[in-house]
Amino acid sequence: MIKFPEKEEILVAAARIKSMIHRTPVVTSDTMNKMWGTNLYFKCENFQKVGAFKSRGAVNAVFSLEENSAKKGVATHSSGNHAQALARAAKLRNIPAYIVMPENAPKVKVEAVRGYGGIITFCKPTLEAREQTLKTVIEKTGATEIHPYDNRAVITGQATAALELMNDIPELDLILAPIGGGGLLSGTALSAHYFSKKVKVIGCEPLGADDAHRSFLAGKIIPSIHPQTIADGLLTSVGKLPFAIIQHYVSEIVTVKEQSIKAAMRLIFERMKIVVEPSSAVPLAAILEGKVDVKGKKTGIILSGGNIDLEKIPQFIR
Amino acid sequence: MIKFPEKEEILVAAARIKSMIHRTPVVTSDTMNKMWGTNLYFKCENFQKVGAFKSRGAVNAVFSLEENSAKKGVATHSSGNHAQALARAAKLRNIPAYIVMPENAPKVKVEAVRGYGGIITFCKPTLEAREQTLKTVIEKTGATEIHPYDNRAVITGQATAALELMNDIPELDLILAPIGGGGLLSGTALSAHYFSKKVKVIGCEPLGADDAHRSFLAGKIIPSIHPQTIADGLLTSVGKLPFAIIQHYVSEIVTVKEQSIKAAMRLIFERMKIVVEPSSAVPLAAILEGKVDVKGKKTGIILSGGNIDLEKIPQFIR
Repeated sequence: MIKFPEKEEILVAAARIKSMIHRTPVVTSDTMNKMWGTNLYFKCENFQKVGAFKSRGAVNAVFSLEENSAKKGVATHSSGNHAQALARAAKLRNIPAYIVMPENAPKVKVEAVRGYGGIITFCKPTLEAREQTLKTVIEKTGATEIHPYDNRAVITGQATAALELMNDIPELDLILAPIGGGGLLSGTALSAHYFSKKVKVIGCEPLGADDAHRSFLAGKIIPSIHPQTIADGLLTSVGKLPFAIIQHYVSEIVTVKEQSIKAAMRLIFERMKIVVEPSSAVPLAAILEGKVDVKGKKTGIILSGGNIDLEKIPQFIR
Repeated sequence: MIKFPEKEEILVAAARIKSMIHRTPVVTSDTMNKMWGTNLYFKCENFQKVGAFKSRGAVNAVFSLEENSAKKGVATHSSGNHAQALARAAKLRNIPAYIVMPENAPKVKVEAVRGYGGIITFCKPTLEAREQTLKTVIEKTGATEIHPYDNRAVITGQATAALELMNDIPELDLILAPIGGGGLLSGTALSAHYFSKKVKVIGCEPLGADDAHRSFLAGKIIPSIHPQTIADGLLTSVGKLPFAIIQHYVSEIVTVKEQSIKAAMRLIFERMKIVVEPSSAVPLAAILEGKVDVKGKKTGIILSGGNIDLEKIPQFIR
């Protein structure tokens, strides 16, 4: 049986990463609250270091390593935010970060990884190619793999976002988070379980990449085949450890249409005047579709990140 | 001689409008501070009600009116943010707002004015047409004109943004603000004069609409002829009362190229993850061009607003 991260580990992670990440603000929108007769609290991980919650898990994982392993570096495959976050965390510890990226990764993300000193190896955009390339890199360097989500220290780090949110906004009824690989959602669910008596956690997933939803219903992992969504951070299939945690502590996983993600993006840009990537808009899309009933409830929403190719904004909102 | 708004008037305005506007946050960017060896403090009026500082002046003006005048309504011509702000302020006081808008005003701004219940009359996009149409509307309705910037109560309202900024960040050396009609810049300069011993105020203007810069050097108003800039909020020529105040209390007016405004827009979107309109990027453009020396200084920047047509973002950053 898999041993889940414990309450104490999340508190240790929060203390460990504190000086290396932002305590992101929680923002509200009068317009949206009136629209749905509710209170929404947006945890702005788009303002996080490297523009995404991934900084939390990456810093926690890198700074959890023993010195002897650490000095050989860390390695991962990632389509984007985790890559940047790991490169930055490694730079903070002054160790190398080997990043395997699909050749179709957004340009802005590739450049950002380079900016943090990450050593990039490109591969075909399939899970198989990514894993094989990573294996080769690790054999050559002796680096420690830091998986983007199927990693205990990463999940524990991601859990700190919900911990902060619940500290800032007591008595939440719900927390909504997007689900891709499941690192954020499983961490959120653990924090909800350990630090709140009543909050329910709901995972929100694009219909075009709904493996977590189908897996949740089936009670076993059913990987995505050819997932398609503008929420490029959510294309990956749910990981083993995240899935086990999600099965235990997440109430529900709901799916949303692409058009709703776009409408949610437009709302966030126009009404809240903040920049988010499409993955961040998925929970709000679930509210727009009426998939989550927020009326009269205090609902936390984790805006996962803000790394977007600005050139694509028009096609993300149309 | 023109009598300038007094210190007491700004304090009264701040108290009057307090419950009807947001106290906007001040944000910083580690990346930018490192880039220039400085401390920049961005006052986020893009998060203001109706998405712009104009809410301050409009609410102050509308709620300064005597009951007998107020009930006949208020009227203005505006290419955008002031129109929305005035419509909203009038709605809060439950009086009509008659808005004259140029027929080429951004769609998102026209819709927003309608959303606040503003009664719109369209006209040709020239100052002459706007003034003539407004005159006709006022003759018909008996409404009080609330000029977007050449109005004492409006300027006093706009002054409250810098007042809040200086309260939040003590010991500022500089405040940079964009200059179009001059309401924001003159209000900022008044607050700097009354509430700080040392802060210098610098106006920042697009080279393609540099009437204020030329007027400042000439010592008299030289209106724009065919101004052209992506910073559509700054197309108007400086007003009489704002100009008189600016001559007294502004240290300098600097001009910036369109390409710098675009580069500043990109920096703000990519690094700060917030949505601003091009006018807001003009002060940062001045820093990018080296027109303002911020090294080792504590510099406040007023981000004037965030009402942008999202479809146009790619052309605003290229």
